[in-house]
Amino acid sequence: MSDLENTLQQVDNNLDASLDRLFELLRIESISTDPAYKDECRKAGQYLVDALNEIGFVASLRDTPGHPMVVAHHDGPEGTPHVLFYGHYDVQPVDPIDLWDTDPFEPTMKEVDGAKRFYCRGSSDDKGQLMTFVEACRAWKDATGALPCKVSILFEGEEESGSPSLDDFLESATEELSCDLALVCDTSMWDADTPAITTALRGMASDEVTIHAASRDLHSGYYGGAAQNPIHILSKILADLHDESGTVTLENFYDGVEETPDHIKQMWEGLGFSAEDFLGSIGLSMPSGEANRSVLEQTWARPTAEVNGITGGYTGDGFKTVIAAQASAKVSFRLVGNQDPEKVAQAFRKHVNERLPEDCTATFIRHGNSPATQLDYNLPELKKAAGALSEEWGKDAAIIAGGGSIPIVGNFKRQLGMDSLLIGYALSDDAIHSPNEKYELKSYHKGTRSWARVLAALAN
Amino acid sequence: MSDLENTLQQVDNNLDASLDRLFELLRIESISTDPAYKDECRKAGQYLVDALNEIGFVASLRDTPGHPMVVAHHDGPEGTPHVLFYGHYDVQPVDPIDLWDTDPFEPTMKEVDGAKRFYCRGSSDDKGQLMTFVEACRAWKDATGALPCKVSILFEGEEESGSPSLDDFLESATEELSCDLALVCDTSMWDADTPAITTALRGMASDEVTIHAASRDLHSGYYGGAAQNPIHILSKILADLHDESGTVTLENFYDGVEETPDHIKQMWEGLGFSAEDFLGSIGLSMPSGEANRSVLEQTWARPTAEVNGITGGYTGDGFKTVIAAQASAKVSFRLVGNQDPEKVAQAFRKHVNERLPEDCTATFIRHGNSPATQLDYNLPELKKAAGALSEEWGKDAAIIAGGGSIPIVGNFKRQLGMDSLLIGYALSDDAIHSPNEKYELKSYHKGTRSWARVLAALAN
Repeated sequence: MSDLENTLQQVDNNLDASLDRLFELLRIESISTDPAYKDECRKAGQYLVDALNEIGFVASLRDTPGHPMVVAHHDGPEGTPHVLFYGHYDVQPVDPIDLWDTDPFEPTMKEVDGAKRFYCRGSSDDKGQLMTFVEACRAWKDATGALPCKVSILFEGEEESGSPSLDDFLESATEELSCDLALVCDTSMWDADTPAITTALRGMASDEVTIHAASRDLHSGYYGGAAQNPIHILSKILADLHDESGTVTLENFYDGVEETPDHIKQMWEGLGFSAEDFLGSIGLSMPSGEANRSVLEQTWARPTAEVNGITGGYTGDGFKTVIAAQASAKVSFRLVGNQDPEKVAQAFRKHVNERLPEDCTATFIRHGNSPATQLDYNLPELKKAAGALSEEWGKDAAIIAGGGSIPIVGNFKRQLGMDSLLIGYALSDDAIHSPNEKYELKSYHKGTRSWARVLAALAN
Repeated sequence: MSDLENTLQQVDNNLDASLDRLFELLRIESISTDPAYKDECRKAGQYLVDALNEIGFVASLRDTPGHPMVVAHHDGPEGTPHVLFYGHYDVQPVDPIDLWDTDPFEPTMKEVDGAKRFYCRGSSDDKGQLMTFVEACRAWKDATGALPCKVSILFEGEEESGSPSLDDFLESATEELSCDLALVCDTSMWDADTPAITTALRGMASDEVTIHAASRDLHSGYYGGAAQNPIHILSKILADLHDESGTVTLENFYDGVEETPDHIKQMWEGLGFSAEDFLGSIGLSMPSGEANRSVLEQTWARPTAEVNGITGGYTGDGFKTVIAAQASAKVSFRLVGNQDPEKVAQAFRKHVNERLPEDCTATFIRHGNSPATQLDYNLPELKKAAGALSEEWGKDAAIIAGGGSIPIVGNFKRQLGMDSLLIGYALSDDAIHSPNEKYELKSYHKGTRSWARVLAALAN
């Protein structure tokens, strides 16, 4: 057998132990957005450092003002490319907790329609995915004593909270981390049988606005009719973000947005995508965004404005006849093409400030911003990786785009001069960021095998 | 000295002990809107039963499907009127707790500009107020061994949660509680020196709406641009509640609203009300409601639509790029004249349902409804009570209206055929329903003396 065949065999034989290692990582409650989980984030980073050192990497935890980075290096044969693998060990919050069927931090295997899957926060986004790569490296080492090419690894612990420490960290480690190509595992398959490489990703601008009116909460009987109600002002501001056709109304919002080329649209049309199934799986029947755009365009190639959270006044059980002193919303904008996140965030603040009546003020908290990214369709590594995936899955890899934001890809291009290959094994029903997040055992197993093959293909 | 003079002397001599009794009641956390405080509500009711029995009433706790009622009776001289005094022992929730300077349930006396006041949830609304009446009765009994007229008492424990048990309870106790006149102590002075009788009160319709879209929370990257966002729909629904001039847009909302008579408006203008001071004290400078209405009209004689609470999506620290499955708002309408609360609530639901796009549904939770009330300006008891108040405070009692809702007044009229005299000693800066609620010691002391006088005046 070839080295690759031996390695794939090793992945198969080693699956149960590999799952045990993943489950140990999944049990660590590494929620990066909530300061209460700071120690858990560090613990997850340390777990990965230990795992990488165990299989022959030189790995260490690197402190940042936020959660630490994991950096690891492993040599490879002379003349082979040097790849940098990226994943993130932090996870989203678990609320609303009462909608989970099992403990969000206890991996629970279930069999559904003959396929095994495991439920846990982070099972799909992104601990399950990043471990496919770690375990592929482990299999190469166990089977052959070496890796097929030079491999460095960067695991981040702040991806879900906008990567506040990333820019500075990469700036301080430019030399150490600049490689020939980045590999990122934080995306989805096209469907349960079809692997995919994601070549475009939306960027994001995000902001939090609080509208302030009276100096304290008011009794709506004494003051109602005369006093400003900040929830009313906020509602108006948010309602005005879109016009009747679903177009975002911010000034110059569409600057830098280009129409998708016809041949790309045609390729997407050939994917057999069903808007009915896509929306039906989440209880919807109609696309609700910009009129006269397909769902793939709406989610892959068009920018959005979304309110991700809103709160104000009394929100507990029962009723409280109060006029709140303030009301807040978290708002994010998905960006495409050359939209400038900073300009979009500024346009949002202008939109808010233009709608403030007398006696109302607005304060803002900036969250993460990142531009959109687009890979060159003619990159040779793209073809090599696509070939390796097709071998593993017995089906041509789909060349697609993604609606989510993976800011790291922009950072790698801008700060380290590297392109990124985005290969992941998540499925659209994995419920990432939602209650009952899960990952298919098949994704984990064949994902590990896929990385084993991709490393071999890139080494040639 | 006359019986009344002896009684007033007794109030003065007894003030410290009287405060101790009030503080004991204030320490009971009788939040009626939150089921977690059920036992505390009962405890507050029992405390009052014990206090009333101690001073010679026949008092008992009466169970309801919610929190219990306190009912008490005391005989009076032949030929005197029979009055029913009403107050409520339940209080509002205390959140946001971090804005309180002292423990919300530990009465804390402070001296500000030479005047003593005490801070506590319920100090003004309504435990402090109802105890002025109980202590006036105690002083009459201690000083003279009798009350000047027949007195019954009803204390409710669900006023702050919309009085769900009140209708049925009054229906079952019509004979026991029907008196010549009701006295209600849940309103304010005109200012710190001027007593007031409130002759009109706004009613209320309240409702809670939840907009449902997808079957689960969604990742805004994968689905953003195609999936309905219920916060957007809710924002639009709420923004549409008012037009540009502040007019409420619900269908037929103003049916039953009459213009305030000119002579009443003139009386109000003579009160020396300062809109600047009223709004300035809460950090505002401009009336924000219906255009071309004075602040007194806006808050006393015009109906409103107010959003009292809103919540949806991620509202914790940091950011979560989620499209929520649902978003909710608590909405109330202050009513005047002959507006029908039921029709207003139905018009709101119609307003919501007309704005639901494909794939969105709305569910509702009805909270309390009550019509507005208006007293006859020629009622003889109004003049007697006004005279007694003027004696105590050395100043003509102001005949005013109120912006708040006291549903009991409508119930007394409708179910028991009684008019209500609304006399209270709260001040507009008491911060009821807000952090740092307080009651002036002067309100408590002279309030008790006032009731001692009013009982004597009504007996003649």
